[in-house]
Amino acid sequence: MHKGMLVVVSGPSGAGKGTICQEIRKRNPNLFYSISATTREKRVGEIDGVHYYFIDRQQFEKMIANDEFLEWADVYGNYYGTPKKPVFEALARGQDVILEIDIKGARQVKKTYPEGVFVFILPPSISILEERLRKRGTEREEIIVKRMQMAWEEIANCDWYDYLILNDDLETAVNDLEAVLTAEKLKPKRVNYRVLLEGGVLIR
Amino acid sequence: MHKGMLVVVSGPSGAGKGTICQEIRKRNPNLFYSISATTREKRVGEIDGVHYYFIDRQQFEKMIANDEFLEWADVYGNYYGTPKKPVFEALARGQDVILEIDIKGARQVKKTYPEGVFVFILPPSISILEERLRKRGTEREEIIVKRMQMAWEEIANCDWYDYLILNDDLETAVNDLEAVLTAEKLKPKRVNYRVLLEGGVLIR
Repeated sequence: MHKGMLVVVSGPSGAGKGTICQEIRKRNPNLFYSISATTREKRVGEIDGVHYYFIDRQQFEKMIANDEFLEWADVYGNYYGTPKKPVFEALARGQDVILEIDIKGARQVKKTYPEGVFVFILPPSISILEERLRKRGTEREEIIVKRMQMAWEEIANCDWYDYLILNDDLETAVNDLEAVLTAEKLKPKRVNYRVLLEGGVLIR
Repeated sequence: MHKGMLVVVSGPSGAGKGTICQEIRKRNPNLFYSISATTREKRVGEIDGVHYYFIDRQQFEKMIANDEFLEWADVYGNYYGTPKKPVFEALARGQDVILEIDIKGARQVKKTYPEGVFVFILPPSISILEERLRKRGTEREEIIVKRMQMAWEEIANCDWYDYLILNDDLETAVNDLEAVLTAEKLKPKRVNYRVLLEGGVLIR
């Protein structure tokens, strides 16, 4: 097992997982934040290497062929994926990693890395979810309709996740995610203590 | 499954589980704190019905015969036990219950109530453990020696617990236990939400 812990934060588009992850990173600057690669167009304000690695389809498909993704998907005609290398390097050096990905991606990671901790972010209501998607103003109507249908299905099938966090209040949701991180580190398989027989000292 | 959650806090005698439970109850006044029954003598400052129910051997043995204990044990010649009735009543009405018991007791509860959450409190060091036991001044030397031997064995076999909390700093240990309570309530089996199809509203 890796020394670090992989936390996968997922949920319907618009549930607020991005904002929650942003806050948790502020509170835990030692968390390694995995940056996804994508072929979709940059949105206003997005920076390459910060929000995503924006790469072209040819490059992405080469990485798929070389098995360089922890998970990847073709979402509404655009590729999204998590490069394996930086994640595994961080885990190997004992750093915890947070992955913010869509639900199909989370299912893939569950298969390739079942030791991960899987967190599902629930929107406070379906109407708020729809409102948030519309406010973004970046999606066409048919994509919003598609996403809303998907959201229903996703919420109905979220029981395989380890934790469900209801995002009706950002502060509470972030506190919940932080409690998950703290509690998971206390599981016997992750407690990195050694009993020194000479001194009888337990070391974290 | 009961609506409430049973949290069992255990660990070697002197690891500080009593103090931790006291603090967690201050922070979470809604937690139902199970009071044990015992046949041992009252220590200075202890109050019947607050620290323990102090009952006589005959009464205790009658309760054993009637299967009225969630767990019980004969420890160094004294009976200790957790009456089932108040615990199950609290769980049934949706209240979370915290049980502070010794390790043999925790093993019994694991068998009779496996849905519980089992937390093991680790002392910061074996020498500090010994020091704490001696400071109490209530035990004879042979009992201290016995307890130290037991502590070693217990620490070596604590891997079956759900969580291990190192009590090297009280504040951190209490925060850890609080994180466990918060995180466990986020598990799908415990999330008490309903999806109202009409409104699409998720309710905690």
